[in-house]
Amino acid sequence: MTKKYAFPVEQIRRYLEPGPVVLLSSLHRKESNIMTLGWHTILEFSPSLVGCMISAGNHSFSMIRESGECVINLPTRELADTVARIGNCSGNETDKFAEFSLTPVKSKKVAAPAIDECYAHFECRLHDDVLVESYNFFIFEVVYARVQHEPLWPETLHYTGDGLFRTDGEFIDRHPLFTKVS
Amino acid sequence: MTKKYAFPVEQIRRYLEPGPVVLLSSLHRKESNIMTLGWHTILEFSPSLVGCMISAGNHSFSMIRESGECVINLPTRELADTVARIGNCSGNETDKFAEFSLTPVKSKKVAAPAIDECYAHFECRLHDDVLVESYNFFIFEVVYARVQHEPLWPETLHYTGDGLFRTDGEFIDRHPLFTKVS
Repeated sequence: MTKKYAFPVEQIRRYLEPGPVVLLSSLHRKESNIMTLGWHTILEFSPSLVGCMISAGNHSFSMIRESGECVINLPTRELADTVARIGNCSGNETDKFAEFSLTPVKSKKVAAPAIDECYAHFECRLHDDVLVESYNFFIFEVVYARVQHEPLWPETLHYTGDGLFRTDGEFIDRHPLFTKVS
Repeated sequence: MTKKYAFPVEQIRRYLEPGPVVLLSSLHRKESNIMTLGWHTILEFSPSLVGCMISAGNHSFSMIRESGECVINLPTRELADTVARIGNCSGNETDKFAEFSLTPVKSKKVAAPAIDECYAHFECRLHDDVLVESYNFFIFEVVYARVQHEPLWPETLHYTGDGLFRTDGEFIDRHPLFTKVS
């Protein structure tokens, strides 16, 4: 198993704000599932809130809605094939952990398993479902986070549509221009 | 002025889904303003919906709430200094177009001006304010979009906190694995 370390939930913007594709893992009535998600945003540092638009057509939609939990997993470029394939099949017909040889790992605070092959795991509880019916928009609280320490920065995948991803490029440090920590 | 072309609003995910920092420009009672924003997500293709978490501490918050409009502008790496500086001063005290030598251009469908130096302009009308009070979360409809044609892909900025951005890296094409267009 990949060694991962607890990470402050109020600092997860480091990984999610740049807009990577993520894998959502869920568990409901002993069935697990995984979906690929690109439509998410940080909403608050503390409590650590993340909003995710999970289209109602996904098998994961009702699993996450009913269990009230999921794990946001951060895949890196080595998983590009898997990320694409997971997004193009349904948990109705496929056991995705088995099909894609992914390793479920026990989470700390939620029942849904995390995906060991991913760089980071953000364990989520449904915080507010007020926009689920109208916009399929789930507001989650990240209740526990674990990340790898190596490499220091993951090479994540950013989706642009039409099967095309970009990974991360150069660092551009403008810290001296920041008058407040943010 | 940079030559820009109309772009289908239902395809703007190409530019916004990968999670770039954007500049929001607004106009209210003849006063214009610009803010830097990293917390946004695509919510729907058609109507073209984008959700933005605009912290209530921003001068732009009430301007956008009251005018019901803004433009999402897509800055590229050449504007890294400006993006950082705009995020670290307030429209209360600063005329940001003048201070940062940015060129306001007339929008097509909203009163708020766009920023000519940016790669793309997404003109927005407030579509639903149901989460504005509780989460500072604005759901906008993109009613008109204009983008440059050159370069084919912009080098955008992705914020990771602490003054550190990353730009875009290599392309990873997994089109053959996509069974449906998405």
